[in-house]
Amino acid sequence: MISALIELDRAGDDGLVSQLTSQLRSLIATGRIGKGRALPSSRRLASDLGVSRNTVTYAFEQLAAEGYLDASHGRRPVATVDGGERVAAAGGLASNVNSARPRLSPWASKLKQADWPMSYQAPLKPLRPGHGDAREFPNEVWARCLRRSAVRAAKRELGPVNRARLREALAHYLATSRGVRATADQIMILPSAQAALTLIAAVLISKGDAVWVEDPCYPGAAAAFRASGARVTGIRLDEQGMQRMPGLAAPKLIFMTPSHQHPTGRLMSLARRTEFLRFSRPGKTWIVEDDYDGEFHYDSRPVPALQGLDGHGRVLYVGTFSKAMTSDIRLGYLVVPPALVGTFEIAQRHIGLIASSHIQEALAEFIADGHFLAHLRRMRRLYHARRDHLVEGLERHLGEVMSVEVPSGGIQLVARLKRGRADQAAVERLVAAGVETRALSSLALARPRDHGLLLGFAAWRESEISAAVRTMASCF
Amino acid sequence: MISALIELDRAGDDGLVSQLTSQLRSLIATGRIGKGRALPSSRRLASDLGVSRNTVTYAFEQLAAEGYLDASHGRRPVATVDGGERVAAAGGLASNVNSARPRLSPWASKLKQADWPMSYQAPLKPLRPGHGDAREFPNEVWARCLRRSAVRAAKRELGPVNRARLREALAHYLATSRGVRATADQIMILPSAQAALTLIAAVLISKGDAVWVEDPCYPGAAAAFRASGARVTGIRLDEQGMQRMPGLAAPKLIFMTPSHQHPTGRLMSLARRTEFLRFSRPGKTWIVEDDYDGEFHYDSRPVPALQGLDGHGRVLYVGTFSKAMTSDIRLGYLVVPPALVGTFEIAQRHIGLIASSHIQEALAEFIADGHFLAHLRRMRRLYHARRDHLVEGLERHLGEVMSVEVPSGGIQLVARLKRGRADQAAVERLVAAGVETRALSSLALARPRDHGLLLGFAAWRESEISAAVRTMASCF
Repeated sequence: MISALIELDRAGDDGLVSQLTSQLRSLIATGRIGKGRALPSSRRLASDLGVSRNTVTYAFEQLAAEGYLDASHGRRPVATVDGGERVAAAGGLASNVNSARPRLSPWASKLKQADWPMSYQAPLKPLRPGHGDAREFPNEVWARCLRRSAVRAAKRELGPVNRARLREALAHYLATSRGVRATADQIMILPSAQAALTLIAAVLISKGDAVWVEDPCYPGAAAAFRASGARVTGIRLDEQGMQRMPGLAAPKLIFMTPSHQHPTGRLMSLARRTEFLRFSRPGKTWIVEDDYDGEFHYDSRPVPALQGLDGHGRVLYVGTFSKAMTSDIRLGYLVVPPALVGTFEIAQRHIGLIASSHIQEALAEFIADGHFLAHLRRMRRLYHARRDHLVEGLERHLGEVMSVEVPSGGIQLVARLKRGRADQAAVERLVAAGVETRALSSLALARPRDHGLLLGFAAWRESEISAAVRTMASCF
Repeated sequence: MISALIELDRAGDDGLVSQLTSQLRSLIATGRIGKGRALPSSRRLASDLGVSRNTVTYAFEQLAAEGYLDASHGRRPVATVDGGERVAAAGGLASNVNSARPRLSPWASKLKQADWPMSYQAPLKPLRPGHGDAREFPNEVWARCLRRSAVRAAKRELGPVNRARLREALAHYLATSRGVRATADQIMILPSAQAALTLIAAVLISKGDAVWVEDPCYPGAAAAFRASGARVTGIRLDEQGMQRMPGLAAPKLIFMTPSHQHPTGRLMSLARRTEFLRFSRPGKTWIVEDDYDGEFHYDSRPVPALQGLDGHGRVLYVGTFSKAMTSDIRLGYLVVPPALVGTFEIAQRHIGLIASSHIQEALAEFIADGHFLAHLRRMRRLYHARRDHLVEGLERHLGEVMSVEVPSGGIQLVARLKRGRADQAAVERLVAAGVETRALSSLALARPRDHGLLLGFAAWRESEISAAVRTMASCF
């Protein structure tokens, strides 16, 4: 008797129709009500279950619409499905997942070997590089901007995916603070700076194109260009930053971090910047400038962006709010040369690289009302002191084992191991002791020339930095 | 005299150091202060300009750090840069942009020919398809969730890019409302549903792989798979939805919209669903189920997702909040089979397909507190009535020129032209009259078999629908 197989929970969250429908569906799908078997009439089943006849009728209609039952012509409904296929389904997913290795794209097959991105599932620990101090972020102010943005949405026209107010606020900020020369419509708002690299690679890189990156380098850049089939070459650094290699033909694209080279923090000299611009023929060689933490410069005022020196529209400028504000915000941006605006806008929507309008409008207000600059000013002072504190601590307690390259800005620094080439082992020892860091050798493209540690200082209070340095000293 | 070339605005927003630095930089960069020329001493320039000596010293130090000046050894600073390169830069960008066509990737070169995505820069007009009614969205409630999410961020641990609270709320919603069988960790939170298709194509599609889509079909799907090099074949529909073509070998991937076929709104029968599942060998043929508006079903309760019938982990389920809530939110999601979770998580971060934590946490609360289901219930009633209203209006006023295919759910419907094959011309006539619609023929992959109009009904009040129908009637 079918009613015996059904158990309705009258106190449950789900309505009776929903419960009955789902249990009948499951009985048919698993073959317990076989194909061709007639169910009781709605009157009969309602009476057996102690529910209203409507409840049963609705369930039957739903299952008929889904194709489980034939309820035509007012007859008793008949199961129309052979449960064979779905016996497995009823048995639970985990036990039935086919264990054959799924065939992936060539790109995806290699992803697990890539040492990037790092999978930090655990909470942030000192001195993980790449982070600002989220504890210092004015969450209340930001929360008000977000709330107002959402309330105002009722009156807002549906607009382009890159919100005009944010583009304008950002164009003004970039012009006055970073020396970037761009009109608002050259700015794309993206879900992350990495998305900007994906977009650039998709639009500009053909299979086999040569791309230069710094060596050591930000691994996400090499990964993005390789994903589009580029041949990526790492270019050595000297004191002035990336070198121009006279022996090599001009590549399709050069990726660089001139404000603070990632990871060394070196500032690319003006002479070197000019050299690269001269070398890059408009329309032939693109320069991608990743200004991921250019807002934070300590030894002088922030150095203007390379993009502002370019008079021929060959620099694409990438920025992020994840370092300048908080990584929770997940927003990057890309300034493209005028000739590429149309193509990039279509490409952005094709790939689906779209940021929430609520966040965009809130950020426009946060910038326009001066909160962004105020926060940057405060963080610049704070991070400056933290950099100095870490440098002093490392020199005092670990001066014999490592030498510090003091960056003129940014949120992290490199400490090179004076002896030995085992930064990976050192990193593992440190992580076990509670200090998170990244091996310099893991950022090398070619054979690593230096071994050392990439240490973040911006996200940590001076007392936390001191404690971490003591822990490090005890490990060496 | 250099001081004569400098004009400082004491009332301006920018500080004097910043103004002086930027004007000196510009004078050097444009060659007006030539390479090798000595500047006045800081004392002298300060006196000439009527500013403090510190102001000038800071500016000199900054320009020295940037490489424009040599200010070593306490001598008067000397310009170290040949302005030649940057004369162009100073002349303004627009006039100097190289007019040579930039070389794009093969994918990007074809973007402008693709008839997708539509570029609607203008405000939403009746009866544009693809939209819910943003005016009905509870912006105040959502604003509170956003505000609380941002305030709570101060206490929140840095976590994975897919927030656990949202994944759990979504897993529960999908299980109870859409019949999707998945644990929270199978869910990826993405910046849009299109981003989900991009991610799927990147991970699963190799160049030359066969992909089936419905014909007519959602153009973004064909675009995403083609971008990864797939050979895309359009499969005809019958009354039950996409047909299985016995003559064709099983493809790598089948994209379908079984809840409400896009654009026709047809519900795929259970028999057809089962047939496709049987046909798709685990690990060989993937099925992508795009359930873009499955929440809105009117003629019976929402039809459970195909994903829930699959016992072998071969269905990838795509959803969006842009239809169910508001397009401002820009959030999509993807449920992947357990065997693919690890690869998809790495791939997601590689491509940078990350959604703001603020939005994710706010949405988790919006769902957990019942606001999401309440909104869906209200919209379901509203959209149901609007569908009926549009169908009635079309049948009454335009019954002679078009026949309506009544969809069992969703937010749009197809009206076929009874005579003629000129839906594009009809669309243009209607747009000029203030009614936005999309030509059915533009959604065909092969030669279009039907001509008609895709009309949205969900975003419009009944009075607005009536007015639009009258406008349409006057155009035919």
